[in-house]
Amino acid sequence: MPHGILFWRSLIQWLGGMGIIVLSLAILPVLGVGGMQLFEAEVPGLTPDKLHPRIKETAKRLWIIYVGFTLAQTVLLCFGGLTVFDSICHSFTTMATGGYSTKQASIAHWDSAYVHYVITIFMIIAGMNFTLSYSMLKGKFSKVWLNDELRFYIYTILIFTFCIGATLYVTQNNYTAEKSFRDAIFQVVSIITTTGYATADYMLWVPFAGVAIFLLMFFGGSAGSTGGGIKMARIYLLIKNSQNELKRLIHPNAVIPVRFNGKAVPQSIINNVLAFVVIYLTIVALSTIVLSMMGYSLSTSLGAVATSIGNIGPGLNELGPAFSFSEVPALGKWFLSFLMLIGRLELFTVIILFSRHFWRH
Amino acid sequence: MPHGILFWRSLIQWLGGMGIIVLSLAILPVLGVGGMQLFEAEVPGLTPDKLHPRIKETAKRLWIIYVGFTLAQTVLLCFGGLTVFDSICHSFTTMATGGYSTKQASIAHWDSAYVHYVITIFMIIAGMNFTLSYSMLKGKFSKVWLNDELRFYIYTILIFTFCIGATLYVTQNNYTAEKSFRDAIFQVVSIITTTGYATADYMLWVPFAGVAIFLLMFFGGSAGSTGGGIKMARIYLLIKNSQNELKRLIHPNAVIPVRFNGKAVPQSIINNVLAFVVIYLTIVALSTIVLSMMGYSLSTSLGAVATSIGNIGPGLNELGPAFSFSEVPALGKWFLSFLMLIGRLELFTVIILFSRHFWRH
Repeated sequence: MPHGILFWRSLIQWLGGMGIIVLSLAILPVLGVGGMQLFEAEVPGLTPDKLHPRIKETAKRLWIIYVGFTLAQTVLLCFGGLTVFDSICHSFTTMATGGYSTKQASIAHWDSAYVHYVITIFMIIAGMNFTLSYSMLKGKFSKVWLNDELRFYIYTILIFTFCIGATLYVTQNNYTAEKSFRDAIFQVVSIITTTGYATADYMLWVPFAGVAIFLLMFFGGSAGSTGGGIKMARIYLLIKNSQNELKRLIHPNAVIPVRFNGKAVPQSIINNVLAFVVIYLTIVALSTIVLSMMGYSLSTSLGAVATSIGNIGPGLNELGPAFSFSEVPALGKWFLSFLMLIGRLELFTVIILFSRHFWRH
Repeated sequence: MPHGILFWRSLIQWLGGMGIIVLSLAILPVLGVGGMQLFEAEVPGLTPDKLHPRIKETAKRLWIIYVGFTLAQTVLLCFGGLTVFDSICHSFTTMATGGYSTKQASIAHWDSAYVHYVITIFMIIAGMNFTLSYSMLKGKFSKVWLNDELRFYIYTILIFTFCIGATLYVTQNNYTAEKSFRDAIFQVVSIITTTGYATADYMLWVPFAGVAIFLLMFFGGSAGSTGGGIKMARIYLLIKNSQNELKRLIHPNAVIPVRFNGKAVPQSIINNVLAFVVIYLTIVALSTIVLSMMGYSLSTSLGAVATSIGNIGPGLNELGPAFSFSEVPALGKWFLSFLMLIGRLELFTVIILFSRHFWRH
């Protein structure tokens, strides 16, 4: 592909990534979409009644961080032996968790531990809430580490990396401990942040590792990141609420609120999050049926749907990391594109945008 | 297998089926398990404070219906050319939605449309709420037909039968319209009621039909039936609540309760149902990972887990209708047995039984 087109598609991923951060931190909370109200207060000083001037101020601050991280990654990748062009393009698509590479083999093109680790670290950053990155850069480390979503995000990455890494070390020929760890953490972070880069083909691993990667497709980045999917905060609230519901079963009269970052979460937000996840999974189930009508097996259909609605990239089997979606029939491409769109817009936004009631106000 | 053992295992399925009906209609509502409180009022005159004498009265009535249906099916199967022994055994395992057959080929052993349809009808009855069957036998047809769960159950069967039947007619060689319809409705009803009989191997159908059957594994019979799985009432409440949540998104201040059989359902019960389904799906996801550790692919693992926790029978691929679970490693058999047990006891019951708080009261 000509350099111009490669640059163009990296650039629009990068610009789109910025749009998504502002959408999720400044617009979705006001619309009341799937529990994003929780993150409203975290944007410094943002209140719905003073929306316009604040969006501008917030966006400016976020732009500076976003550009800063992109520059830092570009420089670090240049040190790793990438051309300036490749460094810029990959920094663009890392920060946007977009995952377009300039190479057919994606990041596996560079057989360099340094490059793999640099990209892993910046994928982790891109999957974090950007207001937290802002606090971190201002030196408020304790505030950052006490954030429930961030801790859940980091623990999830570590647990999956450990399980998959250990499995690779035992089952793959000629894999050193370092190589097992690197391939595991790169793929785990790439899928959980919905970036979609690859340094290895997880379809060639033993079933357990592939199934674990598939499960990660349902996690997604943090709220307020460029990542897609269900989002770590929603999964966290879901787990906490389930624990509480079990406690309520045993102590029917106890009032036990779900706590997030030290504050009790209103039941209406929990219900909104539960509904979001139920609708997300229902769309996945129905879309899997649609894909199977095109002759794809259960796991191929499930993988294609999960990777599309989650904005990830590679799916499973013949739509896995070693292949592209070019063989999918035209109708299937339209359908999966539609899934990508509603997934990117957090489902509910699409419904609100199409309601007459919203436009009247 | 000797007749004695075949009879014994059919008999214990049948006795267990009766236990499950009493459990779900008289005990689970009192424990407050996963929305079963909704069905409490439907058992004539059953109130928690008068539990003991009422359970006896209810159980007696349910026994009469249960025995009556079993006798009716036995007679009808004898007319279809089955021996008295086979008729009794199959009536036992139909009413219990247990699905053990006396033949290796299951119901496919009898190449008789009459036998297939008789068993289909009694599977549908076994998947209904038994208090509704009681009302039906008393001639209260309008009350029965206005029941939201029953209508949802019947519509789901009809829609899946139509889609799968039409697909079979188009894609299978030498399938008449009648044969397509019969194979479709038999397999749909067998899976949705969690019976597990087979007259055809759905793994040999085109992917769409197999995927649709897989999805049905998550439905389960009606509440108050002998069926396992999530249960139709919970799926119905889930869909209704999601619709309401979307309406609330557009009209944030509207108070829209979920209605079931004409009555508003308290939000606490909806939350309980949501938590039940979330925990059910979480167990499915984690268990799929456990199965994949034994070397099974994503779809085989998913199928084995879904069919076990749902108390169905056949899974997918090498654990599908044409095979048995005999090749699963010992640890896997223990694990899947555990899933069958907690699925049968509706998850929450297990947790309550293990809590000290419950036994103190």
